[in-house]
Amino acid sequence: MQSGKNYIGNQLSAKGPKTYKTFNPQLNIENAPIYTEATSDEINKAVLLALEAFKTFRAISGKQKARFLNAIADEILALDDELIKIYCSETGLPEGRAKGERGRTIGQLRSFAELIAEGSWVEATIDTAQPERQPIPKSDIRKMLIPLGPVVVFGASNFPLAYSTAGGDTAAALAAGCPVIVKSHPMHAGTGELVASAIIKAAEKTSMPNGVFSNINSSGIEVGAQLVKHPGVKAVGFTGSIKGGRALYDMAAQREEPIPVFAEMGSINPVIILPEALQNKNESLAKTYANSITLGTGQFCTNPGLLLGIKGDALSNFIKNLSNEIVKIEPSCMLHPNIIGAYESKKQNAISQPNLSVVIDYENDIQPNYARQTLTTVEGEIFLSNPTLHQEVFGPFSMIVQCKDVDELEQIISNLEGQLTGTLIADEDEAEHYPQIISALQNRVGRIIYNGVPTGVEVCPSMVHGGPYPSSTDSRFTAVGIHSIKRWVRPFSYQDWPNALLPSELKNENPLELSRLVNNVQTEAKL
Amino acid sequence: MQSGKNYIGNQLSAKGPKTYKTFNPQLNIENAPIYTEATSDEINKAVLLALEAFKTFRAISGKQKARFLNAIADEILALDDELIKIYCSETGLPEGRAKGERGRTIGQLRSFAELIAEGSWVEATIDTAQPERQPIPKSDIRKMLIPLGPVVVFGASNFPLAYSTAGGDTAAALAAGCPVIVKSHPMHAGTGELVASAIIKAAEKTSMPNGVFSNINSSGIEVGAQLVKHPGVKAVGFTGSIKGGRALYDMAAQREEPIPVFAEMGSINPVIILPEALQNKNESLAKTYANSITLGTGQFCTNPGLLLGIKGDALSNFIKNLSNEIVKIEPSCMLHPNIIGAYESKKQNAISQPNLSVVIDYENDIQPNYARQTLTTVEGEIFLSNPTLHQEVFGPFSMIVQCKDVDELEQIISNLEGQLTGTLIADEDEAEHYPQIISALQNRVGRIIYNGVPTGVEVCPSMVHGGPYPSSTDSRFTAVGIHSIKRWVRPFSYQDWPNALLPSELKNENPLELSRLVNNVQTEAKL
Repeated sequence: MQSGKNYIGNQLSAKGPKTYKTFNPQLNIENAPIYTEATSDEINKAVLLALEAFKTFRAISGKQKARFLNAIADEILALDDELIKIYCSETGLPEGRAKGERGRTIGQLRSFAELIAEGSWVEATIDTAQPERQPIPKSDIRKMLIPLGPVVVFGASNFPLAYSTAGGDTAAALAAGCPVIVKSHPMHAGTGELVASAIIKAAEKTSMPNGVFSNINSSGIEVGAQLVKHPGVKAVGFTGSIKGGRALYDMAAQREEPIPVFAEMGSINPVIILPEALQNKNESLAKTYANSITLGTGQFCTNPGLLLGIKGDALSNFIKNLSNEIVKIEPSCMLHPNIIGAYESKKQNAISQPNLSVVIDYENDIQPNYARQTLTTVEGEIFLSNPTLHQEVFGPFSMIVQCKDVDELEQIISNLEGQLTGTLIADEDEAEHYPQIISALQNRVGRIIYNGVPTGVEVCPSMVHGGPYPSSTDSRFTAVGIHSIKRWVRPFSYQDWPNALLPSELKNENPLELSRLVNNVQTEAKL
Repeated sequence: MQSGKNYIGNQLSAKGPKTYKTFNPQLNIENAPIYTEATSDEINKAVLLALEAFKTFRAISGKQKARFLNAIADEILALDDELIKIYCSETGLPEGRAKGERGRTIGQLRSFAELIAEGSWVEATIDTAQPERQPIPKSDIRKMLIPLGPVVVFGASNFPLAYSTAGGDTAAALAAGCPVIVKSHPMHAGTGELVASAIIKAAEKTSMPNGVFSNINSSGIEVGAQLVKHPGVKAVGFTGSIKGGRALYDMAAQREEPIPVFAEMGSINPVIILPEALQNKNESLAKTYANSITLGTGQFCTNPGLLLGIKGDALSNFIKNLSNEIVKIEPSCMLHPNIIGAYESKKQNAISQPNLSVVIDYENDIQPNYARQTLTTVEGEIFLSNPTLHQEVFGPFSMIVQCKDVDELEQIISNLEGQLTGTLIADEDEAEHYPQIISALQNRVGRIIYNGVPTGVEVCPSMVHGGPYPSSTDSRFTAVGIHSIKRWVRPFSYQDWPNALLPSELKNENPLELSRLVNNVQTEAKL
């Protein structure tokens, strides 16, 4: 059951006059529940509760925080069909996707629980004293990672579960010991409220302090701005557009005390098809890429929006094959009328650029809120000189750039904005002949893929989801995988601190049996 | 011999009209050599050379980069007395300090060399493929840290060797694989040029690409601004004032592509003296702190500028003892007339605040550019309500805050701006009765010290030099110790990449014998 209210800590609250509804894009109607945007007082109260909760939450053991994260996973599973139904009604996405994303969300929560229950992630580092050292004695110094403080998480439109209320940012921040305030995404406020109720239940069952989690409704930009500017907030996680992410980054940078904003923004995910691969794998590549471009109606940040090859018969053939495959695919529903509106307008903007050719723009009748998949092509020189063509068109859209030679290809890659991924399609033993292409590509992206597709972001320790600006605001961190916990922590040193007062992670007797760097040797030994 | 020119890569260059000289504060005269500020063209050329050098330098092996760093250390040592003499003539600091700081600089270079020659610092992480996994196969993904690109380092006024030309920022950035452009500090341009010549020699001897290092002269703010705004620059290191650091941070945040600025700025390093310690260690504490406050004429960022205790006879006694000890100390020379000018003006600004008492302001005759050590005191309530009193007075200055009770003490700590360090002075078994004081202090600082002094920053893996804003612009990183290399790198993933094309760090056969995280187990094994 939807109350439509905010969670200010563990209390439902709806004191404001501003309300809104979510939308079912498949049925093309508004959903019934009414959501109430948080007031300035409610937002302030959520931050103050988070600050108060931080005093105790930051010092809670990893094992106890792990119980909290596992309890969130359990409570989300207990929501069962109610969650799947509301998810589908607010996104137009099919049930299979809802269940898959729920599995990913549960998996993320449990992997962070495992990480912090074990505990070595705090990178405990100990240098013992040398009282006899000349000319001056050496102190005992011990370092570990500690949480930053309250974190604000902005839910993503395209991942209502895995990158929203209890998604990767929230799981990582709670695991680190940071209270979380979620700015719920208005397009799936109902899914958000349900998941928030699961988090609150889990917090109560595992005796977490009130304020460790709040869920804030909003339909405009004011609520998010107030949260980012609040002096009690110490970091921000965001997944969405470049425009939105940059606005938050600017607000955070202009604070009296600037705070880190980890925004995962847009990407066109260049795919480079080398000449021999183009010759020998043409048809199978066309099938693979038709699927990747239209997967989930193109609503993935790793969608391949840019394919690059050397001009010639093989590339012309590929364009023909790819367009044949793309028209075979049934159009599908986008998340919201605003999303399809933006898709159509950005697509038109791209198409209207001089010297761009539309290869295919799906022409059959389609339902409201369904997207027409679109393939375009342009010469390398034109692409290089027109930055508008580099902009992401969020949806089932891709552009094939026909480069006159390898030098132009390298020049295009070197001049691309920062990207989440880059893909190299090569025939056997072909890639080794293009070291400069690979080097240039590596310099512009966070992850490179060999003979695959960029869509599909595996949640595992070796994954980097992030990259040079504007694909993210801080390429020094990944947004996916257990190492994403590093966004929400800082190193902290204790000098000559009494053993009895040290946190367990740094005590002589190593009660948590952590792997620690002791006098420059990694060891699980006691001191 | 001083040329007074810039190093634009390995070429001496002086094309601009603007010149300046350094100053000998002990003799109170200008030094003879004339330095030429870099022109806009020279700056641009240095960045373009760095970008070109990055293409090869980023892929050079750790062992070869280690040879480069060790060669820099060797070449600095080979400068011998010439370096020590120019250092002293440009700073007013004694020879012992010059030699000590040279030792620290050499030690830093060699410790980074050791780190990268071993190589495990890249945090190689491997998740192997699971082609049979249902519902979809799992790719092979491998991650490691890679360099960001050209880094600009601003030399610090108070550490002409250890935090300037070949100091911690430069050593860490070169170790990471980033070319470095140093914006030389105008107060010690001669020391800077000599050290730069050592780096250039080392680069040539170890066959590093031209552009891996440049040294840029400047006397004003324009040169630094042009460097920070240049699209080819990917990160910035700075040690200095809050005003200077914040200005660079703002410039970097406003770029089309924002870049990280790691600025280590001001700190007043609160010292909390608990009641029993005040009672029982009064005289020895006074001696210890008189020395710490005046060490190096108070020109350390960890200088104890704020002492906090509970009002009463013991604190009054301590104030008397401390002032007796402080007047015994011979005044010493500051770095530059501008530094002593700033000291006097900030001191006067503090002293002129209402309800502040001056305990001691050294009154005897002193030489030009020598600083009068000063001790002040104020009631807790006054300190709490007047942020001007929280500002750093860079020099031999400290303020004793007399709190009415423990609650007020906690409130003052909680309301302090971010600090590099916090110190707790406690008698035996006393600290455990003040968990809230310790918790509040931890939340505002990067390092806490027990029964010691904040001055003296040990270079070791467990050291954190950094802290919440404004002590640094990014508390997630330390500026001292081998882990400071993490400021200049980003994680990068290879997906299904052919073993032959992977970097050595990630190859199946583990040719570098690194410790790697393979399928979530830390191991040195081959795959």
